Amino acid sequence: MSQDKPLRFVTLVGSLRRGSYNAAISRALPRLSPEGVTIDVLGTIGDLPLYDADLQADGFPEPVLAMSESIRVSNGVVIATPEYNYSVPGALKNALDWLSRCSSQPLAGKPVAIQTASPGAIGGARCQYHLRQILVFLDAYVLNKPEVIVGGAASKIDAETFEITDAATRDFIAGQLAAFATFARKLQ
Amino acid sequence: MSQDKPLRFVTLVGSLRRGSYNAAISRALPRLSPEGVTIDVLGTIGDLPLYDADLQADGFPEPVLAMSESIRVSNGVVIATPEYNYSVPGALKNALDWLSRCSSQPLAGKPVAIQTASPGAIGGARCQYHLRQILVFLDAYVLNKPEVIVGGAASKIDAETFEITDAATRDFIAGQLAAFATFARKLQ
Amino acid sequence: MSQDKPLRFVTLVGSLRRGSYNAAISRALPRLSPEGVTIDVLGTIGDLPLYDADLQADGFPEPVLAMSESIRVSNGVVIATPEYNYSVPGALKNALDWLSRCSSQPLAGKPVAIQTASPGAIGGARCQYHLRQILVFLDAYVLNKPEVIVGGAASKIDAETFEITDAATRDFIAGQLAAFATFARKLQ
Amino acid sequence: MSQDKPLRFVTLVGSLRRGSYNAAISRALPRLSPEGVTIDVLGTIGDLPLYDADLQADGFPEPVLAMSESIRVSNGVVIATPEYNYSVPGALKNALDWLSRCSSQPLAGKPVAIQTASPGAIGGARCQYHLRQILVFLDAYVLNKPEVIVGGAASKIDAETFEITDAATRDFIAGQLAAFATFARKLQ
Repeated sequence: MSQDKPLRFVTLVGSLRRGSYNAAISRALPRLSPEGVTIDVLGTIGDLPLYDADLQADGFPEPVLAMSESIRVSNGVVIATPEYNYSVPGALKNALDWLSRCSSQPLAGKPVAIQTASPGAIGGARCQYHLRQILVFLDAYVLNKPEVIVGGAASKIDAETFEITDAATRDFIAGQLAAFATFARKLQ
Repeated sequence: MSQDKPLRFVTLVGSLRRGSYNAAISRALPRLSPEGVTIDVLGTIGDLPLYDADLQADGFPEPVLAMSESIRVSNGVVIATPEYNYSVPGALKNALDWLSRCSSQPLAGKPVAIQTASPGAIGGARCQYHLRQILVFLDAYVLNKPEVIVGGAASKIDAETFEITDAATRDFIAGQLAAFATFARKLQ
Repeated sequence: MSQDKPLRFVTLVGSLRRGSYNAAISRALPRLSPEGVTIDVLGTIGDLPLYDADLQADGFPEPVLAMSESIRVSNGVVIATPEYNYSVPGALKNALDWLSRCSSQPLAGKPVAIQTASPGAIGGARCQYHLRQILVFLDAYVLNKPEVIVGGAASKIDAETFEITDAATRDFIAGQLAAFATFARKLQ
Repeated sequence: MSQDKPLRFVTLVGSLRRGSYNAAISRALPRLSPEGVTIDVLGTIGDLPLYDADLQADGFPEPVLAMSESIRVSNGVVIATPEYNYSVPGALKNALDWLSRCSSQPLAGKPVAIQTASPGAIGGARCQYHLRQILVFLDAYVLNKPEVIVGGAASKIDAETFEITDAATRDFIAGQLAAFATFARKLQ
């Protein structure tokens, strides 16, 4: 019987598309997580306005505050995102730009795992290191390995049923979640 | 008397803030440009919705089409942007994500110059190379040098009057614009 | 009959290994280049000492001067390199560090094309953008597309005979060389 | 009285130059480290041959094995390096390329702190994120903050006496070492 403290992770999805491969992955994560770990999908980044310091001066939008608080009380964040134009999707970066200004910056000292999936062969690898550079400034602890980089996503994920149909991909993601739970416990 | 063909550049500003240092720089560019070069500020990136492929499927938003067409008919683009969280502001990346899907992708083969300004000492340098990686995929021709990286912007730019008050910064930016005009003519 | 001026490219190989996939590619380039283009392999980067400013003060090593001059008189450089540890091999970066100090810096204004090959699926993609950032400082003109990123190199290249056995890879590389010749002519 | 376990860090210097600013910083580190922390300078990266897999097949060079073992038995590594051509010096990357092949890869799970110093205003900031990307593959734990980026090094460091003459720089480095000790203890 495991004596480990339960962990509660949240996932941040980088795409707004209903049939997103990364949204599908995020929905599959609870079934792939190790015992003692729960994973909830955060409210969508699509609810946030474009970051504007003048808007911030009038008060943070409600969805920003809710997202920030959900991250703050979690034990770690899984970011599941496509790569757009060799980098982080603007909508995801926009969410991070808002979160970075919150008074109790929620990603500071928070464990983070990154997953990218795309139809192409490279699988979003270029996006991963831009995201890591951003997360240095945000002072998050980003898991090094295993890196989840899912190329050829169209043949591995059924975006209608939100199923990861490729067993090797499921196992690989489950392996990352197990490593992430160990990492998050080590850092507590 | 110069025999060079006139050039028309447009500027894309990465901040939505009214008192933005980079907006101030973009307003000052016409006075700093060489003879035969006109520079117009593009419509704001703040008018664009967050990129969503489902939204795109319903038709491109009007401000995206207008921005795309303005870039398409220009002879080059000057991007003036702050750095947010060691990378490109989400709102600017979001504009690039929309532009990248336009049927006649407007940045393909287009000369681009980058300018970053920020209050800190590093002046947005980290943002520049993320932007360059994005522009590889968009197939733009990005000017190498001189790189405009304005650190300590608060003492060099008056964001109320939109004046670059530091003479050395004005001269440096004018030098970049002259190099950019030469570069754009070489690539035509 | 082509009226284009002949071009002479040189290749810089990033690996010292005799059976290197990238050395094999560099040997195959002459057969894949368009009419009017010759390609020669530069002297090996393995002949250079580790860069040391004190050593430089005593005079540049002969192999550095020879490599610099070969690049200077060429019409463009093809860099064929593996990725080591998510970045540029130290030995290749060392060659660039020496070249960057030469009095007539040979990469300034020089067209450059990048090719990476590796046994893994990502094919050296992470290395490409580090190399591009370095080449911004060196003021080279780096071809955007097509990007040659050869994953699964072990099944596409016979490193004993120096043959690219995969026809699609040969065609893709030939396509890059044709685009590179056009790019180099445009920039002259 | 501190009950903390003593820590032993080693420093890896990225420059071969006798009068290197970064070598000077590395020499000053022992005086700036918190109680209970010792810091030793590793053997120079200049003693290593250029990495070559064929050479490796004949057996690892002695200086590689010695450097690897020193890192393996340490509690953390401080990398003090200049930036060359917007990236990591070739000689430093070469050392990392050798270390990455050692049978008990010494940087796996090892805490690492990065310090860059250079005469220019940017202070080596561009080099830092290339180094961080490399260290993802090597599975090191890299301290996020504070980042030591020393611009204008010529006025802050006396490279003849190996003294950091600027008090603010000394304090800032001491602050990083204290944070690094806390980080290393957390990860044990």
